[in-house]
Parts: sequence; structure tokens; C-alpha cells
Amino acid sequence: MGIMEFENLRKAYLDCGGEVKKFEKLEGELDIGYKISYEKKICEADVFLFALVSGDFNPVHFDEEFAAKTKFGGRVVHGMLTTSLVSAALAMLPGTIVLLESYFQYVSPVKIGDIVKVDGEVVEKKKNRYKIEVKCKVGDRDVAVGWAKILAW
Amino acid sequence: MGIMEFENLRKAYLDCGGEVKKFEKLEGELDIGYKISYEKKICEADVFLFALVSGDFNPVHFDEEFAAKTKFGGRVVHGMLTTSLVSAALAMLPGTIVLLESYFQYVSPVKIGDIVKVDGEVVEKKKNRYKIEVKCKVGDRDVAVGWAKILAW
Repeated sequence: MGIMEFENLRKAYLDCGGEVKKFEKLEGELDIGYKISYEKKICEADVFLFALVSGDFNPVHFDEEFAAKTKFGGRVVHGMLTTSLVSAALAMLPGTIVLLESYFQYVSPVKIGDIVKVDGEVVEKKKNRYKIEVKCKVGDRDVAVGWAKILAW
Repeated sequence: MGIMEFENLRKAYLDCGGEVKKFEKLEGELDIGYKISYEKKICEADVFLFALVSGDFNPVHFDEEFAAKTKFGGRVVHGMLTTSLVSAALAMLPGTIVLLESYFQYVSPVKIGDIVKVDGEVVEKKKNRYKIEVKCKVGDRDVAVGWAKILAW
């Protein structure tokens, strides 16, 4: 795949209102108490792209009429799309980061257009393995909570 | 966002070699022992799109020179991209499916071009809540293992 095709994809995403985040590595030494915060607006294009990548075209994410009849009262964002932002937050930590384990509870719905904020904190360290507790919020409301374990070189 | 922009995105994805899966709901009654199987090829475009959606441009996924120096010996697919296929597999189960919890161990690397197969089986049922054990494999090799809990109406 060439640069040209990547550019077409990126352009199509931007044209649909997608937000391209600048990826930055954080400074400092990873240790217990290290905190990270990251946020991204989840738009229509994200829901569509997540469905293309995963194959998950669940009607609760795509069919407004169908979704209106569920307890959500309308379309919601894929839970694993929301927690994909945790992957980005972890990748920003200092060092070379590899994901080992993850656990999430999807506690309340995310709507298209919501800004999801991920807050994480290192709570355990064993050699170069770290456990990070994570909360994903929309405003003051928790939408997904859990933890991840990573390896950092 | 109009149909036209969606179509541009889909076309850009197909032009980059992406595989658009047909989404189908499965038949039958969800109960202990119910099995599901789903597979998708993970290509370059998927890695790029997952990065756009999440913001995760970790160099282990994008920088060949950098990734060659890690224990992986080359670029690998985001762990949470691999497990996003579980989201698709669960969505295919009979009924209206909502994800409640997920746990995964990322046990071995997935390379760009690999076909990931998800095998799941319902192992617990409490009213309309179900626990599904999940294995993601590339050939005979486990790449991610874990479980998910869902609500099914």
C-alpha cells in the first residue's frame, strides 16, 4: 500500500469530520502514580471505520429506527471503539509499549459526537510490567472502566 | 454525514485492500454451548484506520525500522484491533446484543496480512446475560484469548 492510498483514506476520514490526533510520546519515568490523560471526539466516521475494520455492523450502531426502540433510545458507539482510545493513551507512555492484557466494563452508552476522555494511572509495577487503571468518561459520566497490563522497554 | 462520504470512505478502504465483511445475524437460541466462528484478514488499511479511529500511532505498528529492533522483529497489528473482531463475532449472535464486559490476554503477535479467526462459545447464562469464552487464532496459534459478557434481548 502506497503513501497515496493512505492519503486518500486520511482525506476521506477528514472529509467525514474525523479528528486526526497528533501522536506524541510522553516524557518522564514510568512508575507507580504515573498519570495519563487523553481525549478524542468520536464521530460518525469513527463508527463507520470501526465497523469496516472489525466487521461489526450491529444495528444498535447503525440503524437509528432499530436503536430508538432499545433502552439506549438511539444509536450508540461500539464499546470497543470507546476503549480503543485506551490503546492510544497507553501507546503514548514513555518507552516501547506492548499491550499484554485488558479488562473493561462498558458501563454507560457513548453517543456519536461525544468527546471521550481517558484517564489512566499506573497502580502496579513488576520489573518492566505495569498495570494501569483506566476510566473513560464523557463529561463527568463513566462510560467504560477497567485496567490494562503493559510491557515497557 | 451523507451516504456519499460513507461511500468515499468505503471505496478508499477497498482501494487499499481492505476486506468488507457482509454482516449477518445468526439463527437459533442463545444458550450454553452455542458456538460462533468468524474470521477476517487484517491488512495495512485496517492498521491505518484503527490508528485514525483510536489515535494509536505506536511505532511498533507503523515504523518498520523501529519495529525490526523489537522482539517482534517487525511491525505488528494493534492488540485491540485483533480483539475488535470479537465485537463483530458477538454482534452476529441472535438477538439485540450489547457488550457489558471484556477481558483479553494478547498472547502472540499478529502480522499485517494475517487472517485472524475468532472462536467463541457461550459458557454461562444468567437470565439474559451471557458469558462467552473467546480465542483469536492465526492458523493454529493463539494470538488473543479471553472472554466477554453480553446482554441479549
